[in-house]
Amino acid sequence: MEGAKSVIELLDSDFETVKVLGTTDFISRLNKKIKGEILEVSAKELEGIGEFQTNEGALAVARIRPNNEIVVKPDQFALVLDDIRDPGNLGTIIRTADWYGINQIIASEETADFYNAKVISATMGSFTRVEIFYTEIARWLSKTERKIYGAFLEGENVHAVDFGKGGVIVIGNESRGISPDVGKMVTDKITIPRFGKAESLNAAIATAVICDNIRRSK
Amino acid sequence: MEGAKSVIELLDSDFETVKVLGTTDFISRLNKKIKGEILEVSAKELEGIGEFQTNEGALAVARIRPNNEIVVKPDQFALVLDDIRDPGNLGTIIRTADWYGINQIIASEETADFYNAKVISATMGSFTRVEIFYTEIARWLSKTERKIYGAFLEGENVHAVDFGKGGVIVIGNESRGISPDVGKMVTDKITIPRFGKAESLNAAIATAVICDNIRRSK
Repeated sequence: MEGAKSVIELLDSDFETVKVLGTTDFISRLNKKIKGEILEVSAKELEGIGEFQTNEGALAVARIRPNNEIVVKPDQFALVLDDIRDPGNLGTIIRTADWYGINQIIASEETADFYNAKVISATMGSFTRVEIFYTEIARWLSKTERKIYGAFLEGENVHAVDFGKGGVIVIGNESRGISPDVGKMVTDKITIPRFGKAESLNAAIATAVICDNIRRSK
Repeated sequence: MEGAKSVIELLDSDFETVKVLGTTDFISRLNKKIKGEILEVSAKELEGIGEFQTNEGALAVARIRPNNEIVVKPDQFALVLDDIRDPGNLGTIIRTADWYGINQIIASEETADFYNAKVISATMGSFTRVEIFYTEIARWLSKTERKIYGAFLEGENVHAVDFGKGGVIVIGNESRGISPDVGKMVTDKITIPRFGKAESLNAAIATAVICDNIRRSK
């Protein structure tokens, strides 16, 4: 994790922190919280280490979580990502899910890596509160007992859908949408109504609009 | 404009096209539509020219529009951007506005450049349908007669706001939100309700959620 914000969220989470590299200021300020090995570095040294050109305050190494199977309870919502390839989109989707109290994500194997530095950064700390399970999603969907919502051109208007208490929402790939194999599993087709002329919405934007409508309809 | 999609949207718009560089395939396919000077290039040559590493099919040079003052009519909505600095965010905001039929944007002088290649690309063609006016936004807001909505922590829940037929929506900067000078001009404070733990939403995501609620409440 790179940057003070992500590292602070990490130290507040149940992730296992292996090592923290921080400026004198960062370390003295967070001394009590820091777990793992501590290395004091200058701001200049910090800049050369991470993947990003700038870094304010800290960088940490943590152990990734095992890829545990996710089971969605009847009163919960989860997202299913069908090849979200852009790390910025994935990070924004995680941040948005966390805002709307959705903490489980099932992702296709072609989806961007949760632990990519750009993903972690775009989550703005929400990576600590959202669980992700990479799997063959068509097969996973064939086994779930939850309702499966997916956005299609000819679905029910999201402004009118009663989402009930739980279900899974399939978000399609940035260019080609939901793939045919996955589309077959969708039980409830939904549509975000369009009032202008854009051909489509960005995947993270569509996720946010659907989540807002889910929470409103409860 | 880089890439076949953006160039095709350009040729369908009222932008003045100066020059089009395209592959043989692109040019023969769109021959009747192409305006300005035509240059046939190979796919390989095309890759070296633009700002992006990859480019499928075409690149065009067009004349930028004059920075014309925008007047918002009583039955229209417009966005006011208070220092949206990330080109990807600006492009996504333009695409989202176009989806929701909002075609006027008033932007602070610190907002990313509309004609930045990353902005144009992220709009997915919507740059042709949205007008932008760069100005000192606090002063512009002081002169408008429209209602001015802005997202704050202590505003009215967007799920309950009656947006009426028109108004302007202020979108704050990615890190610091709406600046104090601009905040003073806001007549109607609104809030996107949070159901989980993320601290904030991405600026383009917040724009989309507000737009969806505006169109629903009509």
